[in-house]
Amino acid sequence: MNATEKDSGEVILEVEEKAEAAKAAARTLATVGTAVKNAALHAMADALHQHRAEIRDANAHDLSLAHDKGVAPHMLDRLALSEARIEAMREGLTQIAALADPVGNVLSGWRRPNGLQISKVRVPLGVIGIIYESRPNVTVDAASLCLKAGNAVILRGGSEAIHSNTALARIIAAAAVEAGVPEGAISLIENTDRAAARHLMTLNNMIDCLIPRGGASLIETVVRTATVPVIETGTGNCHIYVDAGADFKKAKEIVVNAKCSRPSVCNAAETLLIHDSMVEEWGGEFIAELFADLAERGVELRVCERLYPLVSLFPALSGRVKPVTDDDYYQEFNDLILAVRVVDSLETAIAHIARYGTRHSEAIITEDYGAAQRFVDEVDAAAVYVNASTRFTDGYEFGFGAEIGISNQKLHARGPMGLEELTTIKYIVRGNGQIR
Amino acid sequence: MNATEKDSGEVILEVEEKAEAAKAAARTLATVGTAVKNAALHAMADALHQHRAEIRDANAHDLSLAHDKGVAPHMLDRLALSEARIEAMREGLTQIAALADPVGNVLSGWRRPNGLQISKVRVPLGVIGIIYESRPNVTVDAASLCLKAGNAVILRGGSEAIHSNTALARIIAAAAVEAGVPEGAISLIENTDRAAARHLMTLNNMIDCLIPRGGASLIETVVRTATVPVIETGTGNCHIYVDAGADFKKAKEIVVNAKCSRPSVCNAAETLLIHDSMVEEWGGEFIAELFADLAERGVELRVCERLYPLVSLFPALSGRVKPVTDDDYYQEFNDLILAVRVVDSLETAIAHIARYGTRHSEAIITEDYGAAQRFVDEVDAAAVYVNASTRFTDGYEFGFGAEIGISNQKLHARGPMGLEELTTIKYIVRGNGQIR
Repeated sequence: MNATEKDSGEVILEVEEKAEAAKAAARTLATVGTAVKNAALHAMADALHQHRAEIRDANAHDLSLAHDKGVAPHMLDRLALSEARIEAMREGLTQIAALADPVGNVLSGWRRPNGLQISKVRVPLGVIGIIYESRPNVTVDAASLCLKAGNAVILRGGSEAIHSNTALARIIAAAAVEAGVPEGAISLIENTDRAAARHLMTLNNMIDCLIPRGGASLIETVVRTATVPVIETGTGNCHIYVDAGADFKKAKEIVVNAKCSRPSVCNAAETLLIHDSMVEEWGGEFIAELFADLAERGVELRVCERLYPLVSLFPALSGRVKPVTDDDYYQEFNDLILAVRVVDSLETAIAHIARYGTRHSEAIITEDYGAAQRFVDEVDAAAVYVNASTRFTDGYEFGFGAEIGISNQKLHARGPMGLEELTTIKYIVRGNGQIR
Repeated sequence: MNATEKDSGEVILEVEEKAEAAKAAARTLATVGTAVKNAALHAMADALHQHRAEIRDANAHDLSLAHDKGVAPHMLDRLALSEARIEAMREGLTQIAALADPVGNVLSGWRRPNGLQISKVRVPLGVIGIIYESRPNVTVDAASLCLKAGNAVILRGGSEAIHSNTALARIIAAAAVEAGVPEGAISLIENTDRAAARHLMTLNNMIDCLIPRGGASLIETVVRTATVPVIETGTGNCHIYVDAGADFKKAKEIVVNAKCSRPSVCNAAETLLIHDSMVEEWGGEFIAELFADLAERGVELRVCERLYPLVSLFPALSGRVKPVTDDDYYQEFNDLILAVRVVDSLETAIAHIARYGTRHSEAIITEDYGAAQRFVDEVDAAAVYVNASTRFTDGYEFGFGAEIGISNQKLHARGPMGLEELTTIKYIVRGNGQIR
């Protein structure tokens, strides 16, 4: 056995041991009452506060290694656990404890002609694998949501946060066990080798579902590698379509909000579609005012050939506007960049969204009832908006009280995922001797 | 370009063209009304009847090729399309037309403090790929269910049924188009090369979901190969647990029914667990009567060491009983074979099911309220039964009026899948200028 084989054996051993333990824990956890789960969440919150010095030490270790490697400042910021961020995690645990437990809810029930009584009951998924990047707070957020919904969780964070994640996972897992949660219900893969993540993604008999949280390339890797079912999250190439007859003020406020309030997130707008009549009727006014507003906020505009000759002359946009390419329409910029296209009709807008969009969040700004109806009927996306910002696609904004991510696929969960999306169902069938 | 590259290019071309067409069709189909879909289903039914000679000719071609290849008689039977089977497909189409359309149902709706009105609405999945084996009736059954739920479907059947499948798919697709369904909504991959199926399984941007229908090895291949989300169907290693104090008659009838009524299907029982007290109290009586009944129906018994010395002496079981192995407990025999184990408690029965089961359908036979409650709470399976046969896990028996398969996974759909399981949701959010 050479060194690599030995390492690979150790990697596999750690992953399988933790997965086995998680599977066993999940069996018990499925029948643990809400009171025990809530007590564990409060105990985890207390433990974070008690052990905050230890957490900050571990985090300082990660930050120092990252700094030595020359990691960019905005990445260091993601990695950092300030007192305030530890407090926020603690607060999050308390909030999740306060949410209603979805497990055990009867979704429907009926009696068959042969007397069988069938109930469709919400139960935990079982074992959930979370694969994420550099933000160590995901360790606590994801573990607490999984726990509240009765699931065991196996965490696999980014290598740059390994000391922070290990400290956090050990602290919360110990507190949870102390409060009555079975051993193994919360665990973190400590080996940062990629082989560990790969192995985790193919343990179909032990893991019920994988949720990747991070950038497009992480998600792509998980989708391509995993044989365990994946809930794909993330990519959002969202559009705002300003229809003929849109309200000037609403349109402007929504476009600015959807682009500028937090450009790095998946529900930010990437392309603005404007009905030709808005350019015609309002002439310079709407375009000039909106674009000047965006430019003032640092937005770079990539505009279609219909608009370019017009807006490239605006002094306020100097250096902030350039011609759009077809490739731009496919981009999730995640930045202060906005593609802009003038369309001749609602149909063209809908077709543009169908072609370039990622089916995440799409909005129409209109005062026309028929156009609003047609847009919500025909646009295929997790969330379709009329006269509101795409930025509302979020578990908290939807009122779910929590969010594990935003599903970008159609199976199982679509859009913001709260506690219910971390459960499945089982059918309970009560009879008195029925045979078929 | 050599011959293989050319073939492979052609394979890819066919799959991508059909997937593109399906994706375009799905966009239209999502907004097509129930009346058009039902008219199409009736037209498809009529077309099957009208073209039955053509279907039987194509099927005769497949049967003759299969016969020449020395295909086993039971496989030839699966492949054969008699007049009665064509009539059954026709009847199935009419029944699906009569079912309620799930598309457009509002599952829930609420208003947020900021005035946003959110509705969660049932919409079609989009494009569904069905990968199946030798039964050509799947072509019609799957296409009709997908269509009724507003989805485009791409079919990929077994090579031995290619002429039958091609004839069926062309006939029903033409009838559907004639009735107003968009072109491309129903298509069959005609190239029988495996590369075609492999390519289909990785078209994540065009196909929303894959449903494999067939034996364990087909399903395993799809799960391992696909990057498109899969709904895993099928494998059922189901148990009947006869608890202490079970009703003698119910227990016997249910065990015989669950094992013998159709041993080849996934909801048939594979292992019988018997509480020790049933052996003690009823002594020879229960065991002798049950086993003699099973033996009479041709069942081979593989029994644990507690029972073997007892039952190997029964003359009625001569040649029909042998010692069970640990491996037997993992088997889905799909045949007239039953593993039998005596357990010392309900806990041991539940632990056995957790270890060896496939989480499909599990039954307890008991008159004890506490045991029944504990079994339904603690056993993790798509369907958990009290005093009824596992054979009821079926879309028709559950009252869904149809079935595309039985999901054996926890994401999206679990247990029998009817029309609702072929849909997803979208959130429609109506505002009046809200920004975040």
